[in-house]
Parts: sequence; C-alpha cells; structure tokens
Amino acid sequence: MKAIVNVFLKPGVLDSQGKAVHHALGALKFGGVNDVRVGKQIVLDIDAIDEAAARAEITEMCESLLANTVIEDYTIELES
Amino acid sequence: MKAIVNVFLKPGVLDSQGKAVHHALGALKFGGVNDVRVGKQIVLDIDAIDEAAARAEITEMCESLLANTVIEDYTIELES
Repeated sequence: MKAIVNVFLKPGVLDSQGKAVHHALGALKFGGVNDVRVGKQIVLDIDAIDEAAARAEITEMCESLLANTVIEDYTIELES
Repeated sequence: MKAIVNVFLKPGVLDSQGKAVHHALGALKFGGVNDVRVGKQIVLDIDAIDEAAARAEITEMCESLLANTVIEDYTIELES
C-alpha cells in the first residue's frame, strides 16, 4: 500500500525556507507570488491488512519520527 | 490560486534521506515498510489569469529554481 505523508510547519511558525524561496522567486522576476510554504513529502510503501491498520501505523510513525508535532502538522493519504 | 509542487529525486538517484528514515523506522520496530522516499512539497499562492498561465509560470519556476532537473522530477497541481 502506498502512503503519502505531508509534513508542514504549523500556521503560526515562521517558515524560513518558504520565505527564502519567496524572496528568490522575486529576485528572478516572478511576480504575483503572494506566499510560499515549503514542507516535506514522505512516500511510504508499506504492508498493511487494511486502510484502518495502515492509517493507525502511519499516525504512530508521524508522532514518533516523521513530524515534530510541537511545530509541525501532518496529513496522511493512502493509495491502495 | 493555490499551486502545489512536489519535487522528488528521480528513480535512479540514491535517496539517502529516504534510506535514513527507512532505517530509523526499522529501529523503532515498525515492520512492513518496503520503501521510503522523501521529497519536498512547495505550496505557492499566486496570482494568475487562468490555469494555463499559472502552469506555465510555475513550470518556469521549477526549471529555474524549485527543482534541480538533473536529479529531480516535479509535479504541479493547481487548486483554484
């Protein structure tokens, strides 16, 4: 089963990488960019009995390793 | 318009960050993980006349800044 985990900084947290990209796009004369946020996308190929089991296991992975839940949020998408 | 750009290493390129996460998940006793790949997700809020114009502009951003096309592939999703 393929799982896609997106990890992003929480809204209130300064996204310095996003700000740097935003600034660089401006320097390259790309106008009309209002905001840029940069996150991680982690694609896992896992064995799981069903979607519920996969989601539970991946949530545990996110809480313990993939995301820093103090400053980051995550979303999980499953593709069977 | 919201645009989501996913940047991943090309299939043949060693994904050392993915390998490290895979190894760490194993060390944390998460079994059944066959593969892990780690990429970047860049979320842009841009002003564009229409989807075609937005896609063209973002493609140019990817080619010139957001992705290293020698070793990375990218996908673009648009949400109006």
